[in-house]
Amino acid sequence: MNSSRNPNEVLTELAQQHGVQTTDEEFAKFLDEKDNIAFLRDDFILPSMMNDEVSEAHNIIYLNGHSLGVQPKTSKQHIIKDLDGWAKKGSLCRSEPGKIFPKEDERLSVSMAKLVGAFPDEVSIMNTLSVNLHLLMVSFYTPTQTRHKILIEKQAFPSDYYIVQSQIEQRGFKPEDSIIQLQPRENEDILRTADILDVIEKQGDSIALVLLPGIQYYTGQLFDMEVITKAAQAKGCMVGYDLAHAVGNVELKLHDWEVDFACWCNYKYINSGVGAVGSAFMHRKHENNERPKFIGWWGHNASTRLDMTNELDLSPGINGYRISYPNSLGLCVLRASLAIFDKTNMREIREKSILLTGYLEHLLLSKVSKYIEIITPKDPEQRGCQLTLKLKYTASEVYSKLMKRHVICDVRKPNAIRVGPVPLYTRFIDVYWFVNILQEVLQDFTKKIVL
Amino acid sequence: MNSSRNPNEVLTELAQQHGVQTTDEEFAKFLDEKDNIAFLRDDFILPSMMNDEVSEAHNIIYLNGHSLGVQPKTSKQHIIKDLDGWAKKGSLCRSEPGKIFPKEDERLSVSMAKLVGAFPDEVSIMNTLSVNLHLLMVSFYTPTQTRHKILIEKQAFPSDYYIVQSQIEQRGFKPEDSIIQLQPRENEDILRTADILDVIEKQGDSIALVLLPGIQYYTGQLFDMEVITKAAQAKGCMVGYDLAHAVGNVELKLHDWEVDFACWCNYKYINSGVGAVGSAFMHRKHENNERPKFIGWWGHNASTRLDMTNELDLSPGINGYRISYPNSLGLCVLRASLAIFDKTNMREIREKSILLTGYLEHLLLSKVSKYIEIITPKDPEQRGCQLTLKLKYTASEVYSKLMKRHVICDVRKPNAIRVGPVPLYTRFIDVYWFVNILQEVLQDFTKKIVL
Ligand SMILES: Cc1ncc(COP(=O)(O)O)c(C=O)c1O
Ligand SMILES: Cc1ncc(COP(=O)(O)O)c(C=O)c1O
Repeated sequence: MNSSRNPNEVLTELAQQHGVQTTDEEFAKFLDEKDNIAFLRDDFILPSMMNDEVSEAHNIIYLNGHSLGVQPKTSKQHIIKDLDGWAKKGSLCRSEPGKIFPKEDERLSVSMAKLVGAFPDEVSIMNTLSVNLHLLMVSFYTPTQTRHKILIEKQAFPSDYYIVQSQIEQRGFKPEDSIIQLQPRENEDILRTADILDVIEKQGDSIALVLLPGIQYYTGQLFDMEVITKAAQAKGCMVGYDLAHAVGNVELKLHDWEVDFACWCNYKYINSGVGAVGSAFMHRKHENNERPKFIGWWGHNASTRLDMTNELDLSPGINGYRISYPNSLGLCVLRASLAIFDKTNMREIREKSILLTGYLEHLLLSKVSKYIEIITPKDPEQRGCQLTLKLKYTASEVYSKLMKRHVICDVRKPNAIRVGPVPLYTRFIDVYWFVNILQEVLQDFTKKIVL
Repeated sequence: MNSSRNPNEVLTELAQQHGVQTTDEEFAKFLDEKDNIAFLRDDFILPSMMNDEVSEAHNIIYLNGHSLGVQPKTSKQHIIKDLDGWAKKGSLCRSEPGKIFPKEDERLSVSMAKLVGAFPDEVSIMNTLSVNLHLLMVSFYTPTQTRHKILIEKQAFPSDYYIVQSQIEQRGFKPEDSIIQLQPRENEDILRTADILDVIEKQGDSIALVLLPGIQYYTGQLFDMEVITKAAQAKGCMVGYDLAHAVGNVELKLHDWEVDFACWCNYKYINSGVGAVGSAFMHRKHENNERPKFIGWWGHNASTRLDMTNELDLSPGINGYRISYPNSLGLCVLRASLAIFDKTNMREIREKSILLTGYLEHLLLSKVSKYIEIITPKDPEQRGCQLTLKLKYTASEVYSKLMKRHVICDVRKPNAIRVGPVPLYTRFIDVYWFVNILQEVLQDFTKKIVL
């Protein structure tokens, strides 16, 4: 599997070598056998029932990891150990070996940092995505009369949009004056990098902050973070990314790309459960910045934090942005999930991902192209694992038929379905079944409409 | 048990009626029998071992609930149900009955609101204490050239201190110009209400915000929130409280007292575990305030939140301050612990508490007064359950001897020990044993020193 080659070509070649058609069930099985991270699926509990009546475990196809990842098997055991420690030892549980929180935080940062291409001291596990974005914008959005604008997408995830509006207002500016919105050209779904660079080139001098997603939540577009960061910084802008849909999904090199800051949630590709503890990155170059920031006691040097002197000795870097006592149960799930990532690496995951999503695309184009349009970019370098399908029929009706057939994906108004074959736990055969089921559902639909 | 009477008198009278001495073991047993919330102890798992060698469950005396509350028995079952829902249903677990998060949040706010004397829509369960304090200060600390000061204690909890400093700096002011520090008179430990009111009277016109604890974490002093709030507001100041040590400990009437805002953590008297989800209060009078605020998608009207239009429809009141997807496991523990509070009420808890802490004080004065000084106010109306003992010997050495005798409390530099008999799960007999052990430890100490 070679990530630099077009997955479609690779698939065609592999099928030929194996003497089968790319659309054959046998080919899916062959790809699963060749998959060298297939064993990781065993580390997760895959959803096994849609509702209480159905219990045939094998026929659930979970393609919704872009919304909520599945549960690492060891989560429960980490949690129970934690709960039992608290029950048996009361407050003493906090000083158990390996439990001293600053150390536990930092230990998890080592694994997390690998996923985003950062040094461990550039990453902190804390709060939630939107809270972290607020905290980092307190530092990195410092508007002046001539440079007060924020460049975001018009279709940014709502939380990011509200964060930007409210930060602008808190600094005494007006969103209508200070937001520059990027949107795709007419009749296009995807932002062109050239258009983004053009805005930066023309308006960069007035832009204080460029805030973009790593991967767009709706379209699945992967932004060229390296190029955008460089262009924006050349114009004197700060650059931050919302990596909710990028972390654990694609390779990131936040340090090398010189990204100023980033934040992400860990309930999607990091598989840490509903409302999991989030994360933040700040580049080492800002380690000792004197920017405004909102400080809490957890940002104080861990070794003297409990001396309670009220003389702040702020930890350098992103650790100085930690605010509160970390949530113990939340860290347990992260520990379980990061241990799985530690068995592989993002390059290996991404290689499978490009082939797996390429296979999904290939089958969709072969079998259902007359009913759908894929709005996610065709170029594997411009997308992660998720494909967004624009349907010719009401997406919510198609979606509920898929659900009845035990497929879990999600629907986005007005008429899109997001399908995320997550390489850590999705098999090629799952993708094969999914496309067959989708084909049947769509054909059925067409018949009914014709009648 | 009558909360308006001095507990010492009540105890003496009860002992007389029962024909025993107040210092007799039998008296402790008698008080436990009379305790009409004694049955609640069964709803908790009390710490049962200090280390792996020791397993005699009965002889652990847990007096550290002011630091970390003990575990509600049903926590594990709520958590396992939640984990199993996620494992079995993947993302569908979020739409299970009773699990739709806005509803779950709001349901828990009903119970929480009772504990602080608020309407449910004045309370939100979210983030952590220090993050909430930052978010509320974004709204309620809006300094001007003539009114930019914040009144806090010099000995405020470090996080509050750093929060105040960093908020002042973010607004372009200097902590050294804008902080007014309250401290006790020379050779006193406790702030006098009259002195606080005096500062407010004299300097109130320049004070933007009065930020005090409900109960001081070190001394255990309960502030007269009603009186302070009224005086400060009369001078045009905003008033906020850090209720970390007050919630679940004393009766609060945040609504009636017209407190502007408050926040608290839930791992002390609310018993929701290390780094539990925190809470915030904002008075209804500010429901539709137009103050600056930091907004996230969870503040958007729950019924249209997922329409993803980026047209903000902010929830009124404190719910508009919610930022992120709530943490599911965190809410599980809160659900378990608030269900226990729902079986009683703060008046009943407080009645027991006044007697229980009065009993602790009475025994300490009877048995160990020559070795210790109690710095917590004597007046039950000026303290919660915790007593802080200043020791004549190094507190950490006394503390480690207590630990060896299976007493869990905590030590605070330089020479104090904090003892919190939490009425929800502490028996009179526990207090009795504790004072006996402390007496033996201190006597032993004295002997060694003399030798
Ligand atoms: C009085 C007081 N305020 C603030 C805090 C900080 O709480 P958190 O770390 O949850 O923000 C604590 C924590 O113990 C506290 O006791
Ligand atoms: C792209 C993106 N940004 C931000 C968020 C908000 O995350 P949180 O609620 O954890 O702050 C999400 C949540 O799904 C998201 O998908």
